[in-house]
Amino acid sequence: MGASTVANLLHAEDLQVGRRFDLGTRHVDAEAIVAFAAEWDPLPMHIDPGAAGASPFGGLIASGLHTIAIAVRMVSDAVVRHSAVVAGRGMRDVQLLRPVRPGSELRGTLTVIGLEFQDRETAITVWQIELRDATGEAVLRIVSEATIRRRKAGRKT
Amino acid sequence: MGASTVANLLHAEDLQVGRRFDLGTRHVDAEAIVAFAAEWDPLPMHIDPGAAGASPFGGLIASGLHTIAIAVRMVSDAVVRHSAVVAGRGMRDVQLLRPVRPGSELRGTLTVIGLEFQDRETAITVWQIELRDATGEAVLRIVSEATIRRRKAGRKT
Repeated sequence: MGASTVANLLHAEDLQVGRRFDLGTRHVDAEAIVAFAAEWDPLPMHIDPGAAGASPFGGLIASGLHTIAIAVRMVSDAVVRHSAVVAGRGMRDVQLLRPVRPGSELRGTLTVIGLEFQDRETAITVWQIELRDATGEAVLRIVSEATIRRRKAGRKT
Repeated sequence: MGASTVANLLHAEDLQVGRRFDLGTRHVDAEAIVAFAAEWDPLPMHIDPGAAGASPFGGLIASGLHTIAIAVRMVSDAVVRHSAVVAGRGMRDVQLLRPVRPGSELRGTLTVIGLEFQDRETAITVWQIELRDATGEAVLRIVSEATIRRRKAGRKT
């Protein structure tokens, strides 16, 4: 949990709809694209520059799963590890909007788009996560759900 | 593309709604859970057996992204590499139904649940991908979309 203590972790009450988090940036190079895909999605368009050059994309593109993994890591670092999230529940929607090519610089944001209190202990928070490339075009949009703890009565922020 | 040739690749016309593919099985051990999460989702419940033991799950559980990655690799090996898929478009729904623990044996299936011809060249195919554990309980359900080429007129199967 890094420098966060239980008292200052983000709880459900801190995640008002509309609250937005900057997830910073990640650089994606050809080596990372090939290494990820070799393990998880070993298709020629992700691992073989020659075959990828002859594909409709005209060159290597990252596996969609790799782009999703980058987003999850950014959310893990910037938000989840500083929060009282119990577990992810899944994703309502994952849109691979544009191919991610070697040399891409991806900037991420997370926006709280839903919050539903379940009981005295927990709530479900709904997040829209977006990655944009250096031109500002969105390459990935995810709507995900997680269960997060509520603050206990009497606990100070 | 392995042993598949262009002529015997699965094209849109081969993916009738209801067609089902067995994706085989994958074993998930603690080492793989920790290694994956250390890179992509380094939360205590995925990488620290001690902290995980004190969590509501009572022990290490795989990152949801890890379970998704296992499913993508199974689909890549069993279906996509033998097909004329152009690219994934995204996922309409991803449900993390049960935690995946060390020692799990996951069996996967892919069922074609939608097929929409777009133009003379391509179609969109919609797949439901499911992973079940050794007890038969579903742990992950994904509805995903991919663009796939149609057979060209005159090409034989």
